[in-house]
Amino acid sequence: MNQWRVVSIAVIAGALLAGCERSDQDNGEERSAPRAAQASTGGGSAAGGVGGAADQVIRERNLSPDDVLAALKTFMPSGRIDEYIMFASGGHSGQVFAIGVPSMRILKTIAVFAPEPWQGYGYGVGEEILREGDVEGVPIRWGDTHHPAISETNAEFDGQFLFIGDKANSRVAVIDLRDFETKQIVKNPLAINDHGGCFVTPNTDYVVEGGQYGTPLGWDYAPIEQYKESYRGLVTFWKFDRAKGRIDKEQSFCIELPPYWQDLFDAGKFESDGWVFGNSINTELAVGNVDGKSPPFEAGVSQRDNDYLHIIDWKKAEQVFKAGQVKRIKDFAMIELKTAIDQGILYFAPEPKSPHGVDVAPKGEFIVVAGKLDPHVSVYSMARIKKAIADKNWTPDPYGVPVLNYDAVKEAQVELGLGPLHTQFDDKGYAYTSLFLDSAVARWTLGGSYQSLHKEPPWKLVAKQNVQYNVGHISAAEGDVASPDGKYLVALNKWSIDRFFHPGPLYPQNLQLIDISQPGDKMQVIYDMPLGMGEPHYSQMIKADKLKPWSIYPEIGWDPHKQAVDPTAPKAGNERIDRQGSTVTVYMTANRSHFTPEHVKVRQGDHVIWRITNIERSEDAIHGFALPGYNVNLSLEPGETATFEFVAKNPGTFTWYCSEFCSALHLEMMGYFLVEPTQSADARRAETTPEGAP
Amino acid sequence: MNQWRVVSIAVIAGALLAGCERSDQDNGEERSAPRAAQASTGGGSAAGGVGGAADQVIRERNLSPDDVLAALKTFMPSGRIDEYIMFASGGHSGQVFAIGVPSMRILKTIAVFAPEPWQGYGYGVGEEILREGDVEGVPIRWGDTHHPAISETNAEFDGQFLFIGDKANSRVAVIDLRDFETKQIVKNPLAINDHGGCFVTPNTDYVVEGGQYGTPLGWDYAPIEQYKESYRGLVTFWKFDRAKGRIDKEQSFCIELPPYWQDLFDAGKFESDGWVFGNSINTELAVGNVDGKSPPFEAGVSQRDNDYLHIIDWKKAEQVFKAGQVKRIKDFAMIELKTAIDQGILYFAPEPKSPHGVDVAPKGEFIVVAGKLDPHVSVYSMARIKKAIADKNWTPDPYGVPVLNYDAVKEAQVELGLGPLHTQFDDKGYAYTSLFLDSAVARWTLGGSYQSLHKEPPWKLVAKQNVQYNVGHISAAEGDVASPDGKYLVALNKWSIDRFFHPGPLYPQNLQLIDISQPGDKMQVIYDMPLGMGEPHYSQMIKADKLKPWSIYPEIGWDPHKQAVDPTAPKAGNERIDRQGSTVTVYMTANRSHFTPEHVKVRQGDHVIWRITNIERSEDAIHGFALPGYNVNLSLEPGETATFEFVAKNPGTFTWYCSEFCSALHLEMMGYFLVEPTQSADARRAETTPEGAP
Repeated sequence: MNQWRVVSIAVIAGALLAGCERSDQDNGEERSAPRAAQASTGGGSAAGGVGGAADQVIRERNLSPDDVLAALKTFMPSGRIDEYIMFASGGHSGQVFAIGVPSMRILKTIAVFAPEPWQGYGYGVGEEILREGDVEGVPIRWGDTHHPAISETNAEFDGQFLFIGDKANSRVAVIDLRDFETKQIVKNPLAINDHGGCFVTPNTDYVVEGGQYGTPLGWDYAPIEQYKESYRGLVTFWKFDRAKGRIDKEQSFCIELPPYWQDLFDAGKFESDGWVFGNSINTELAVGNVDGKSPPFEAGVSQRDNDYLHIIDWKKAEQVFKAGQVKRIKDFAMIELKTAIDQGILYFAPEPKSPHGVDVAPKGEFIVVAGKLDPHVSVYSMARIKKAIADKNWTPDPYGVPVLNYDAVKEAQVELGLGPLHTQFDDKGYAYTSLFLDSAVARWTLGGSYQSLHKEPPWKLVAKQNVQYNVGHISAAEGDVASPDGKYLVALNKWSIDRFFHPGPLYPQNLQLIDISQPGDKMQVIYDMPLGMGEPHYSQMIKADKLKPWSIYPEIGWDPHKQAVDPTAPKAGNERIDRQGSTVTVYMTANRSHFTPEHVKVRQGDHVIWRITNIERSEDAIHGFALPGYNVNLSLEPGETATFEFVAKNPGTFTWYCSEFCSALHLEMMGYFLVEPTQSADARRAETTPEGAP
Repeated sequence: MNQWRVVSIAVIAGALLAGCERSDQDNGEERSAPRAAQASTGGGSAAGGVGGAADQVIRERNLSPDDVLAALKTFMPSGRIDEYIMFASGGHSGQVFAIGVPSMRILKTIAVFAPEPWQGYGYGVGEEILREGDVEGVPIRWGDTHHPAISETNAEFDGQFLFIGDKANSRVAVIDLRDFETKQIVKNPLAINDHGGCFVTPNTDYVVEGGQYGTPLGWDYAPIEQYKESYRGLVTFWKFDRAKGRIDKEQSFCIELPPYWQDLFDAGKFESDGWVFGNSINTELAVGNVDGKSPPFEAGVSQRDNDYLHIIDWKKAEQVFKAGQVKRIKDFAMIELKTAIDQGILYFAPEPKSPHGVDVAPKGEFIVVAGKLDPHVSVYSMARIKKAIADKNWTPDPYGVPVLNYDAVKEAQVELGLGPLHTQFDDKGYAYTSLFLDSAVARWTLGGSYQSLHKEPPWKLVAKQNVQYNVGHISAAEGDVASPDGKYLVALNKWSIDRFFHPGPLYPQNLQLIDISQPGDKMQVIYDMPLGMGEPHYSQMIKADKLKPWSIYPEIGWDPHKQAVDPTAPKAGNERIDRQGSTVTVYMTANRSHFTPEHVKVRQGDHVIWRITNIERSEDAIHGFALPGYNVNLSLEPGETATFEFVAKNPGTFTWYCSEFCSALHLEMMGYFLVEPTQSADARRAETTPEGAP
């Protein structure tokens, strides 16, 4: 540090840091001192006269009694932490949203399949992760994220990792919940798309990726007229290495299925441990109106009364895979359909009328399937399924898969309403099923050992809560693990229509928070949350205190991609610029409010490797690094080190700067990148692309 | 429509559409029937016993009296429309957020400088707009959005257009507020970065883009040792053609300035109509520690007691430009510094200690400048400025620019606290200034004709409201136009520290809503909004009913880029696939729940032009179009037509589908894109990039 740094810090630093330090102190006080809960809103009787003031606001804003309750149930006072964190897929935004519940505030958009410059993801760093998801050499920089799955231990959320599938391109991503960043993308080598991704087995041994539309396996071409023979369905079991925090492709496998459209999956637990369950549609093998005489897809796929629940013994499949009884396509292990049948890995059971959701009850003994063109949900019993298999109470489907007798495996059918889709569970022995066509959420009673938890008869509709509008998935607090919490349920509504100011013809989605804490018919929509940056498909809601996010990176020089310190990272005191021939390596540090070095000078055409470490140790002391003209923007969290490289093609005088407001002298946190031309300006101009051209 | 379509619609359609139609009806009723405002929260006295229930929630959630008021002031009942819409820049997310106030819910992320697949922006369509922003042939797919500016008529927001600047690459974008979509990006041919973009003149004749760091003009190279001679500052006046909804580059010009770091600008109005005001720092001409003896940037830039307020007569500049008294650099018109001085276009006035914000009072007679290392704000009077110019009461700066005498132009200095940055105005004669180092918002009194609006003495601090933490800009309801509304003010805080659950080391920002409706020292923070997907820099807040967004596009076959119907767009009944040699053109329609045609078959290497029209006329009936393997995802709003094209490089069986959940049979809204190989699979595999490789 030279004399000028010392002077500048002496003159300015006290004031600069005062705000932050005082803030920290305030925080401590606020956290330790309990809030005075003297508020009553009773007219005149309230401490400080809040009652009168509250009544005035209620009158002025024309709030109903239910509105007042909803406001009080969802408002989070400044500094109060939300009780739950909901991870919602972002649909075709390609991302995942972390949302606080009950306030329904978005805490972070986690960049996954689409680049996001605020996080520096794909704009200098993160590109190696995105490239893992390229498809046959084509860079794919978006995704259609569908089903987030939080990692589990003993069928309970453990809050360590989050998995998310991309329906569009059949990919799965791994997010580390220590820093809420994407660490890996795997592309399914056999499938072109999926739907049921992701679901985890009870100890996260495998991340299950269900299929979707029938295609030839391995991205191959085959005429659609050969659909029955050449097209296939698929379910993939990605092996998760928890210690490494990565999917291990070598230890993963898939199972060939008939070309029905496999859809959602769920993993069994306890009584159904070792099994996964998936639904399917299009057992008709409809291919659209290919010949001018066939039905179009939406009719052709819905002709039969039943499709097939897929019942898969994944532990047996794992043994078969480990025994090497697989075919390899694109170097990926596949258990062939015949093997799956012969080895007793795969069974079917009929499921009525265009099934969509399949959900395993908390103790694992029941599997609930909703058929969207049937007003009932069908409940299957694992005990009955096991018995039917033992009894060989089946008939084969056209591909030879044993189809178990429906009456033998069915535990109950419950009439709920129009368009049932997805089911969640609570702590009171209720199940909740979304009703798309009714725009409602049905609460109904489970039987069996859940019956003692509620007062109503088993397997009956208890209440319906209207939602606005066209609800897809629903998500309850820890609503699909072994011990659901009840309390909150979110309806992920696809249409919002009149609920919000509409920002042009592209309307936001509407995520409605429902209070499900009271039994019987008492449910209440307590918050409407517009989501205008994607279409959440599904979400999982975890107790916030199960998550242990880092506030800063553990050590200075931390490489988030490796989740380890990089011993070669730039550090304070060793900043420098090395030149080896035409390769220039910059070792830079960032600290409030200075990049060291302040100038980087290269010659046009030089290969530049630029390394930066944020040497801060205060939480929230984030620095950005924006380099104009080079599509580079980093987000450097405290301790983080990053490296990017490029060829300095265009000469000029470039001004990099900190793009995250870090201090009162943030604007001054900049430097000059000087690229000296190797040819005259005129010659250069003659060569460069004309302004505005692509 | 063939027999099968008819059958499928007859069987299923009633149920499919029932939900939506009923919803519309409900909506009508809800909108017309006034809400019962019988709520009182008084203990026991309330209708339906809400008082007791409310008290119970207040106790259980430990809410303070202020919390209760805040909850009641900000909660929006389902279907109630927010009163204000705030457009917040997204910082280095590159986007703009539309946020409802007082609920602080994000209604839309408007994609501007970064691609966004949910909106289909940059993933098949929108690429021509993004390409306009390329820099010297380099695709730049992000931005650092700073200052949104809503279009104005007579110095009031008219709600028609929104402009936003990209600091990183000196670009300006135009958003049409009929569909909330970006229509144009212009790259400044002379500047490498900006800060003060955008600000509009009172009738939106010009969009003003201020400068930032000194560089050689035209992206040229010059050694930093030649800073004083070869580097320059800049302000650019982009001519806006309201009828076309586009910036007209030919009618735009810029003014050369000394290489001080120009920063924020604001346009005069009424008394100051025809003038713009900008601040600057680094009149020291500091270049960092280039010689081992100079101060680093953050100290070097802050050595002098004063920098210069820039006072620019833009109407005179327009005359000079139109008279052709310009130099052209990169074919862009620039008024040279000498011309600006000689023609009386440019004046300076001293401004104390690292100035940052410059804000013109509602009636245009005062200009407020905040120096972030000075506890005061300086208020300049336009009348005094005009007199000082007439009196030639100035001394020249080193570049010959007249520096007006500070005492002659100063109206007042008001002591506020540490780190004043930006100022907003209300309807009660108060000004509000953010205090970065104090982490507070200061309310103070204006004098002159504003004095009658409040009871306090003029030019005095009235109150300070603490915020959490490190506030940058603030934004009041219509707070920088001719008639501010008061009521709400949002503090855009840079650090959140302990305010929220922190999702890893990258913390959200904290946008705090402050109730400023009561005079004197009564201000209250009533909402903390985390923003975890960008760093809003500045925002403008407009009354929602001034905006007239379209709910659907005006006609079927609408091209949003042209904002006109495309007579050649695919329509129902003329769907087809045309082949001309190796060019295949698809004319497709999308409607619930069907793409027509259902199959597209081409040969490997064909050039495919794909055109799709969403023929829906119901609001919110949006369809996506996802094409796996080709980085294509469209968002097709009702009536919209879109075209994308590509070479079918990879053979295979691709399944396109609707990526926006549109109906109960949404999953069935798909089709097959068959690319027949022109070589054997083995030969192909030998050629393709190995899996996982970049």
